[in-house]
Parts: sequence; C-alpha cells; structure tokens
Amino acid sequence: MSDVTINAREIINDAIEAALLNEDINQFRAEFLKIHPYDQSEFFEAQTKDVRYLIYSYLSPEEMAEVMEHVERELQGEFIVEMNPTYAAGILAKMATDDAVDILNDLDKNKVASYLTIMPEDEADEIKALLHYEEKTAGSIMTTEFVVVSIDMTVKEAMRHLRKVAPDAETIYYIYVVNHDRQLVGVISLRDLIIAEGALTIEDVVNRQIVSVSVGDDQEDIARMMRDYDFLALPVVDFQNHLLGIITVDDIMDVMEEEASDDYSKLAGVDVDSVDQNPVAAAGKRLPWLIILLFLGLFTASIIARFEETLEQVALLAIFIPLIAGMAGNTGTQSLAVAVRGITTGELQKRGILKTIMRESVTGIITGVTCGLAIWLIIFIWQGTFFLGFLVGLSIMITLFVATISGAVVPMLMDRLNIDPAVASGPFITTINDIISITIYFGMATMFMRFLL
Amino acid sequence: MSDVTINAREIINDAIEAALLNEDINQFRAEFLKIHPYDQSEFFEAQTKDVRYLIYSYLSPEEMAEVMEHVERELQGEFIVEMNPTYAAGILAKMATDDAVDILNDLDKNKVASYLTIMPEDEADEIKALLHYEEKTAGSIMTTEFVVVSIDMTVKEAMRHLRKVAPDAETIYYIYVVNHDRQLVGVISLRDLIIAEGALTIEDVVNRQIVSVSVGDDQEDIARMMRDYDFLALPVVDFQNHLLGIITVDDIMDVMEEEASDDYSKLAGVDVDSVDQNPVAAAGKRLPWLIILLFLGLFTASIIARFEETLEQVALLAIFIPLIAGMAGNTGTQSLAVAVRGITTGELQKRGILKTIMRESVTGIITGVTCGLAIWLIIFIWQGTFFLGFLVGLSIMITLFVATISGAVVPMLMDRLNIDPAVASGPFITTINDIISITIYFGMATMFMRFLL
Repeated sequence: MSDVTINAREIINDAIEAALLNEDINQFRAEFLKIHPYDQSEFFEAQTKDVRYLIYSYLSPEEMAEVMEHVERELQGEFIVEMNPTYAAGILAKMATDDAVDILNDLDKNKVASYLTIMPEDEADEIKALLHYEEKTAGSIMTTEFVVVSIDMTVKEAMRHLRKVAPDAETIYYIYVVNHDRQLVGVISLRDLIIAEGALTIEDVVNRQIVSVSVGDDQEDIARMMRDYDFLALPVVDFQNHLLGIITVDDIMDVMEEEASDDYSKLAGVDVDSVDQNPVAAAGKRLPWLIILLFLGLFTASIIARFEETLEQVALLAIFIPLIAGMAGNTGTQSLAVAVRGITTGELQKRGILKTIMRESVTGIITGVTCGLAIWLIIFIWQGTFFLGFLVGLSIMITLFVATISGAVVPMLMDRLNIDPAVASGPFITTINDIISITIYFGMATMFMRFLL
Repeated sequence: MSDVTINAREIINDAIEAALLNEDINQFRAEFLKIHPYDQSEFFEAQTKDVRYLIYSYLSPEEMAEVMEHVERELQGEFIVEMNPTYAAGILAKMATDDAVDILNDLDKNKVASYLTIMPEDEADEIKALLHYEEKTAGSIMTTEFVVVSIDMTVKEAMRHLRKVAPDAETIYYIYVVNHDRQLVGVISLRDLIIAEGALTIEDVVNRQIVSVSVGDDQEDIARMMRDYDFLALPVVDFQNHLLGIITVDDIMDVMEEEASDDYSKLAGVDVDSVDQNPVAAAGKRLPWLIILLFLGLFTASIIARFEETLEQVALLAIFIPLIAGMAGNTGTQSLAVAVRGITTGELQKRGILKTIMRESVTGIITGVTCGLAIWLIIFIWQGTFFLGFLVGLSIMITLFVATISGAVVPMLMDRLNIDPAVASGPFITTINDIISITIYFGMATMFMRFLL
C-alpha cells in the first residue's frame, strides 16, 4: 500500500473523528460512507462504547451491516448484543447470510431466537436453513444468495434476470443452471454470457463439466480444490445433486488463513492468534500445554532417576542429556511437520503410507549416521575419551532413527483414526522423543558401564 | 468432493489412457479436452516421458498452455525444456503472462532469450516487461492482461470494448478506469456496469475510491489487503500512479499457501514441502539444522561440564535437566510463535512493541509462578526433599520468565533489522533457551550447594 494512500486515510479518519466529536451527523455520514467497508470496520473497532452508540444512531441497519461484515470474527457478537435488538436484527437481516449465521452461531440460543423473530420472515428463513450445518463443513460456509437460471431460458432472459438479482447476490460472475427439479446441471460464467448471442438458449451455452462439493465436505478440502482449480465460487449440492448454495473465494481466503494459523498453533503448542489478549488470558492459553509438559518432564525425570547409580558412577554422562534430547525432539518435529503438511495437502496419501514410512526410515538412517559419526569424532577430540564419544554417537544414531519414524507415524496414525493429525503437536512429539532418547542413552550407558569406568 | 465425482474422473482417466495406448489422437482429444485444466495437469504430471511426448504431439500450444498453467510450480520448467523449443515458446506465449514469467525466472538466461526470440513480438514484450521485477513483490505476481477503459467513454462503448477483450483478459470483473496519461483514476465492477444505463459516461459511474498497491510492495502485505477488503483483483501502480497491471485472487491464494508453508517450515526447522522427495534429498534438507543444533548442544554440554563438581556431589540434579530445558524450550516457542504471527498479521505493530514486551513479561511471571509452585509441591511429595523441589521450582520460575521474554523479543528485534522474523525458528529459540535454563539451574544449585547436601 503506498504511503500516499495511508496519509489520505489518516486525514479522512481525522475528519470522521472530528464529525463525531461535534455530533455532526451529516458531516459524519459524508466522510464515513465514502471509505471502504473494511476501513469503516477498522475505524469502528477502535472506538469506545459511547462513540459506537453514537455511530449506531447515525447509520441505517443496512449501512451498519456492511461495516459488520468486515469486523473481526471475535468482536462481531460482542457488538451485536450491545445494540438495540431491533437494530441488531435489522443488521443481521441485511448482512450476507453466511456471515450472519457465523455471528448467530456464537450467541446463546435465546438471543438467536429473538433476533430471528424480529427480522423479516424471508431473511429469517434463509438464516434458519444454514444454522444447523456442522462447523467447518461446506454447509457452514456457503451462502444462499447466488444467481440461478433455468436451463430453458434464453440468454436474453437470463441477462434480464441477472440485472434484477445482481444487487443482492454474493457473486454474479458464475451463473448456475438447474433443471426443473432444481438439480444442478451446469454453470455459465458471466464472461461467456456477455459474449453469447441473446437469442440462444442457456442449454446452448451451458458448461456441463461442473465441479461441485457436497454439503458435508470439509472446508479444508474445499479450499484446496478452489486453489487448484482457480475457481471464484463453487456450488454446494445435497446427495441428490440439488443446488443448495455457493461458496465464494473471499470466504475461502478466511478458511485458508484459519487453517494455516491452526496448524501453526498446534506446532507451537499455543493459540497464536492471542497476540491482542491481556497477560492473564494469554497465560491461560499457554498453561495447559506447560502443565502437561511438566508431568511428562517429571516422567522423564523418573526414568533418569532409575539410572541414578549409573549417573553417580559417571557424572559426565549428564552433560550430554540436553544434546541428545534436543536433537531427538527436533528431528521428530521435522518429520512431524513434513507428515502433517503432506496429509493436509494430500501429497502423502497420493504417495502411500508404506512408502512414506520407508522414506522416513532411510532419511532417519542418513541423518542418524551423519550426526552420530560427527559427534563421536568431536567428543573424541574434545574430551580425549574414545568410549564416551562412541556411546553418545551411537545413542544419537539410534535416537534420530527412531524419532524420525515416530514423528511421521504418529500423525499418520491419527489421520487413520480420524483425529486431526496436527493434534500430535510439536511439544507433544518433542517430549515423547525426549523420553525415548533418554531411555536409549542411559540404557546403553548402564549396559556398557564397564567400558566407561 | 463427492464420491460420484471421483468415480466419474477415474472412468474418464481410464478412457484417456486407453486412447494414448492405442495412439488414437481423436479419441484422446475428445476425452482429454473435456475435463478441467487442473485435472488435465494432474493426469499429465503422472505420465512417463514417452507419453508426455505423445501428448505434446496431440495438443496445440494453446491447449497445452492451459494444462501448463495448472502444473505444479516445481515441474513446469522441467517440462518446458524437454519440449521442442518452438512448441515451448508457443506455450509460453499463450499462457497467462504472469505464469509464463514465473517459469522463465527458473530457467537459465540463454534459454529464456531464445524462447523470447521465437515467440511473437507482442507476447515477448509483455513478458519482458515483467521479467525484471523482484521476487515476492507486486510486480512479480501481477499480470498485464486486464480490462482498462478511458474515463470519457460511454457505458455502451465500454461494454463493446469489454466484449472484444474479454477472451484474453485474466479477469473482466473489475474494469479499471484511466485518464489520458494512463493514470489510474477509478474502477467500475462488471456488476455495476451491467446495471448502468448505456447512455451514461464512465465518468458518471466510476468509483473513485480505489485501493491500489505499489509495484514494489511485498506479496504478503497484498495478500492481507485482499483478504481484508474481499477484493477479487487489485490494481498495481508505479510511483506516479500509472496503471501497470493487476493482481488476481487466484495468484493471491497461491501466495497465502506459500507464506503459510514458509512460516510452518521455519517453526519446524525443515522445508515441509519436501514430502515427495527421495530420502537423500530429504536428509539434505534436515541436516543443516541438525548440525547447527549439534554444535549448540555441545555448547550446552560444555556449560554443564563446568558444573561437573556440583553434579558429582548431587547426581540427583541431573534428572531434572530434561524437564527444565524442555519447559524453557516450549514456552519460548509459544511466545515466539505468537510474536511471529503478530508481526505477520500486523497486530503486533498496531499494539506497540513496548506494550507487547510488558504483556509477555507479565505472562511469563504468571506461567512461571504457577509451574514453579506446582513442581515444588510435587517434588516435595515425591522425593520428600524440601530444598531440591525449591531449587527446581525457582529455576522453572526464572527460566519461564526469561524464555517467554526472549521468545518474543528475538523476532521483534529481527523485524526491526529487516530480517524475516520467522528465521528465529523453533529449534533455534529452543536451544538458546536450553542454554539459558541450564545455566540458571546449575548456577543456583552451585550457589546453594550447602542446602542440597
């Protein structure tokens, strides 16, 4: 974004703030309504409660609906419930149906029922139809505001129909074609419709090679399809191929963002979208994993405690604990991340599970042998002891091999059991590999004690 | 995707394969050209070199261009260079300009020059104009195939112009409006153009509140804008506001995917898009970090070695090393991930660096005190020793506090120095925090040795 644009926005924001300060409704509307709804929402979010109430009184539900569509997901519900209920219901009715449903899904059922009672029946029905779909499925992100034409219309009739419904549709760039049973039979892009002769029928110009998704499909799969096929919208059908709604690319961008942040969060063991929280809330988000790790760490401690005798004989053994545990944890995270990513993109399934395990095994052998030999050599030079280096090197070798395989197998296993593979998150796999590596290291040290002394 | 669709695709794929086996060009073209270009590319990628050569001889450069646009980025260059150069040049000329440029950027300069010489001058000029933009900037992902109209045209003239250029434009859903100096003055959506009266001029209907990006802007910022504003395309201008090109949402989805996978890779310390590589290549991707960690681990070992005397006196101290190092590493990764994410989304800058550090400090105190007290209590009950528990608890407390702050400060510092904050990746911050935590733990143990004995 060029600096010029940013400066221009600041000047406008100042003008809007001045208008609010003077309670000058005309001035406010003139300045506020000429900026983009996203900028309106940014401005709106930054205001205090008193100023927000003033803004509610200055804008129609229809105007406020546009602002609300761009407000951050977590704040939308908060704002809706602070409004006068009639005004709130008016906004929900005027918003894109899928966005209104997202807000209502966060509110308690009594509130939802009362908003639906106050708003016009038509809009209430549209919202009700979408309210019962499961989260993260096609049904939950689709909208019912799309353009549909019958297969026996002429191109001219279709264009006339399009002009009429265009203001309310979420996208008019794909026109979906149905038969008399409202079953999806094809699609025509606005581009093709514009180029087509008016006297032709839709049947002449329809593209029957249409890709659709089922209403229960997972949003992540749909995002992948949309990216692969470069669609701007995808139709959603039921099991009998009835057209139920469409999913537009703007909602898919939000899905992609959400899924990416989800995977990233799980690898780090924390909800990364908590940057704007207060410290108590932030600590609350981080403590669950830390407490689990604390207990896993105590378990690791109890394993080492069993080797106390070994440790007392050769205290030097302790100095390599962080090295071995650290490398096991990291290599596990590496193969975990590759596997989770492969499952997410579908590449791993394409390649086959057995082949992937084989691949990881060989990778583990290569990295294990390389690092094992390197550490043996370094410790030999550094400490002058041949056998301690050999022990650490061999432990690293076995550990990297086992940790690499476990990092790959755990998420694949979870996927098989229909659990989100990303749940086998970074800290979890790291600690499991800590335990495995420490057991290998001390087990071997105890076994070969006579060489160490 | 419904199962029906998948089965249908398999049947079609079988038919295409049969046609290729029989070297039946008509059958092949009939079946192949009716599926979506993305499916064509999937089919094409799975073939052997011999079959690919057959396909080249069956498809025109124009038809192959559509397939190539959907082929995976890493494979495109490989295929282009195996073709007859005239055929390859024909494909590059027919592809969307931005996609052709992406391919050419991967090839060596001699090859690029010869393709540009063979292809029609018009297309060569368009490609040359885009070739010199830096990677990951607006210039490198924009296309020059867009619809532009002059401010003094009538709506009817604009529609006529649109019909003419529609087949070649990357998107026709936004029509950009320029003045006589080709400076961007506004935009009109196809939706608004269709609804508008034919006799009006563009000046009457143009939307002058246009958001544009500069040609050198970072692709990640542009992706964020596109998502926030729900645009399908964004115009790209130079410093004098001349319209240079547009960026379309399909390219932005690829950018989002690329950036997400980039951040994820850095947190895991491995290129996660390596799932389809052979084990040697995979090991090659993972070893650099493992070798770095090996040396950092040796450094940690040398720190513990300095406390060898302490260790020999109280061998029990060693059993809590993985617990303390593990928790320090994890809490550091948590605050790192939150900070990197905050920088990426711009939330952190909005909030302010000092405020963020304050927030992280208080968060670190809360998690530190909670975990520290918990571990003290548990060790007291488990081992019956008051002071060892106190020592471990206090170490955890200080360690979590320091690790939380360091996890947040390091990426912010990097951002200030204009280094990608995600470079302060998971394994790096984990090992740094290992070193800090071990030093604190053994330092305190040595200091308070008389209480431990």
